[in-house]
Amino acid sequence: MKKVLVIGGGLVGSLLSANLSRHGYKVKLYERRPDVRGIELQAGKSINLALSTRGWKAVDLIGLREKIEKISIPMYGRMVHDEEGNKSLQPYGKEGQAIYSVSRGELNVCLLDKAEKEYDVEMNFDWRCVHVDFETTTAEFEHTETGEKRKETADLIFGTDGAFSQVRANMQLTRRFDYQQEFIPHGYRELLMPANADGSHKIEKNALHIWPRGGYMLIALPNLDGSYTCTLFMPYEGKDSFAALEDDEKVKRFFTEVFPDFTEMMPDIIKNYREHQLADLVIIRCYPWVNKNTAILGDASHAIVPFYGQGMNSGFEDVSVMDELIEKHNHDWEKILPEFQQLRKPDADAIATLAMRNYVEMRDLVADPGFVLRKKIEGKIYRKHPEQWMPLYSQVTFSHTRYSQALKTGMIQDRIMEEVMKRPDIESTWDSAEVEEAILEKLKALK
Amino acid sequence: MKKVLVIGGGLVGSLLSANLSRHGYKVKLYERRPDVRGIELQAGKSINLALSTRGWKAVDLIGLREKIEKISIPMYGRMVHDEEGNKSLQPYGKEGQAIYSVSRGELNVCLLDKAEKEYDVEMNFDWRCVHVDFETTTAEFEHTETGEKRKETADLIFGTDGAFSQVRANMQLTRRFDYQQEFIPHGYRELLMPANADGSHKIEKNALHIWPRGGYMLIALPNLDGSYTCTLFMPYEGKDSFAALEDDEKVKRFFTEVFPDFTEMMPDIIKNYREHQLADLVIIRCYPWVNKNTAILGDASHAIVPFYGQGMNSGFEDVSVMDELIEKHNHDWEKILPEFQQLRKPDADAIATLAMRNYVEMRDLVADPGFVLRKKIEGKIYRKHPEQWMPLYSQVTFSHTRYSQALKTGMIQDRIMEEVMKRPDIESTWDSAEVEEAILEKLKALK
Repeated sequence: MKKVLVIGGGLVGSLLSANLSRHGYKVKLYERRPDVRGIELQAGKSINLALSTRGWKAVDLIGLREKIEKISIPMYGRMVHDEEGNKSLQPYGKEGQAIYSVSRGELNVCLLDKAEKEYDVEMNFDWRCVHVDFETTTAEFEHTETGEKRKETADLIFGTDGAFSQVRANMQLTRRFDYQQEFIPHGYRELLMPANADGSHKIEKNALHIWPRGGYMLIALPNLDGSYTCTLFMPYEGKDSFAALEDDEKVKRFFTEVFPDFTEMMPDIIKNYREHQLADLVIIRCYPWVNKNTAILGDASHAIVPFYGQGMNSGFEDVSVMDELIEKHNHDWEKILPEFQQLRKPDADAIATLAMRNYVEMRDLVADPGFVLRKKIEGKIYRKHPEQWMPLYSQVTFSHTRYSQALKTGMIQDRIMEEVMKRPDIESTWDSAEVEEAILEKLKALK
Repeated sequence: MKKVLVIGGGLVGSLLSANLSRHGYKVKLYERRPDVRGIELQAGKSINLALSTRGWKAVDLIGLREKIEKISIPMYGRMVHDEEGNKSLQPYGKEGQAIYSVSRGELNVCLLDKAEKEYDVEMNFDWRCVHVDFETTTAEFEHTETGEKRKETADLIFGTDGAFSQVRANMQLTRRFDYQQEFIPHGYRELLMPANADGSHKIEKNALHIWPRGGYMLIALPNLDGSYTCTLFMPYEGKDSFAALEDDEKVKRFFTEVFPDFTEMMPDIIKNYREHQLADLVIIRCYPWVNKNTAILGDASHAIVPFYGQGMNSGFEDVSVMDELIEKHNHDWEKILPEFQQLRKPDADAIATLAMRNYVEMRDLVADPGFVLRKKIEGKIYRKHPEQWMPLYSQVTFSHTRYSQALKTGMIQDRIMEEVMKRPDIESTWDSAEVEEAILEKLKALK
């Protein structure tokens, strides 16, 4: 029985461990932090996640859908809040299609439990990886409390230890390893909107709420207990920035003026604002992802910004792509690993680009009538010609189309829709047969 | 007297040390390797360097021009060798303008000697930097032989420890540090062409020799002892690649067919080819370059590919730019360091771009008649209207124009010359008043 080491017991690592065990490998999981299952979970402790189609596919591999459905809340659209407090719902996809709000901590507990109890994965918490030797497929760990050292040799090592991966740091010391870490000029700060006294949600439960304000935005994702995990994304420096919110009075005034409906629902905005640390947003790109019998997955090889809700989903898709390659190559890892990285790298690059572009869409465009009309037109074409036109958001969120393909198709759609939106009478004619034909013809010409 | 630590005793570090000492600082220099002055120097041990105008300016700060002139050889142009062994000389600039071939090792010896003997810089060799604490401006070192540890606290720390900088590695652990290392798909291998029996040069001494072959190239720079340091730049993989030269027979056939005149002058091409290791080419970009009282310079903050001959020159220009800021801000480092990085970062990015572009020019375009004609036309305009048109190569190599400005001007020149070269009769009319006026008019329109 082949031995596998998985380094990093977050979402991707615990899912991967369970799935490899299912395939007949003897899996040991190592995690630097303590077992999250021993710690009381608190909603709002990190960006809530939105599980979507790609993620569910990987979850299905280990039979965890039902359990995760119980701890997640479907969000069928974006609820856009303007500065006057008006709200409008923009559906994400077709009727019934949703993305699912789930707490990172609760999801991790589910995955670890499944991996340990059903798939017999050996769990080692509080062990920090300090070194990986690719020649011998050996990893060295240090216990975070006792300082004890331990070495493990395996047939395969997987690094799923996140954006600041130690496994990747060791790859970085080898020859010709391309690496990039890029911090965007924006950061984020979380806030927690409490439930009503009776435990009900203060605002629409089945939506992702956005307060788009051009250069920055506030979002809110529902939690099971009636609260919302809210996140303010904003530049570090400049006129509207975290730096500008230097004292309590300015914080108070900012929220009251810019997010009046939100602020009314918050019991103590200043205290809430100060409670969570300002956090950074980083994009990680690197290559190769494989060195001999060691590979990195998820944020370790491709960390992205959270604006397309695809960070976890792309990591989970790594697991299902690898699953397919295990079948295809019948466990021949000399074929699986090279094909995995070659196949997956362009998709990781594409979703990194898409995620950054979606920030502009979320914080600015969703409030723009032209953008809303464009979505309406695309929605119509999609319903009538689903085999010819799937909007980019749907491709990314509700399909298994490769991200790189979605990016290409999306650019063609952009070109077509930019032209269509220039038609002088588009507000009145958007639903006409003429516009529909024009779109389809251009599509044919460009394909 | 303010204490300064310079970490890294290569070219930029030794020059910087001497210059800071000249400004009245007490400078300690730490270098990981042994003192190069104790080791017998061997030509051809690393890419020969081409010192040009920007480099000389910094050399002048510490009064080392005369000495370096004695160990360097002026190269007035490119000697292009085609596949039939025909040669043609393309001058680099105006008459008398040259770039200077110098051995890295010999230059380093000169700089270290000057820093130690004339500027009283304290030298510490065989000490590897293991950690920098930016809060306390403290660096920790470990002796490479004895393992002894030592801490040094200073008022300022400068990291000039090259492309794989330890100072930068410590910056990378701080918040929001952008970093990129990118290995290009090409590598290089050095060869040494010996002198004639009487010590004379086998080919033109005062030129940089190029054998451009489209996807790859060979170059040769003269050494004082009559030999040439030659470098083959080529892709790692593919049809014409290092991977394809897998056995001695293939190496022999490759050189004989592709570089016949060169190979005739080489006593044992196979042995020579195997003597030096295949080496990588990396581009490093990062930001910020400053953390509190610590700054990184040269390759540590901006390593580039060698194809514009500006790696060392841009590092030396870092030193002279900092020199100007020391005067401007009268030693107020709270002003000097922030302005230094803000000023210099766009120029480092620009030369990184230019250097990569020049690879295509060197390995491919210099053999193209259209390109040669374009250079001739530009040369004429430059001679007649020097205040309006300085060719990009001259701006980079023979001026102190900011790299970022040169890149911009170069793009305007490209646009103009692309149009001019499209004129059907350009081969016969290039020297006409009509073409000259057309160029000047377009220039006026675009400025």
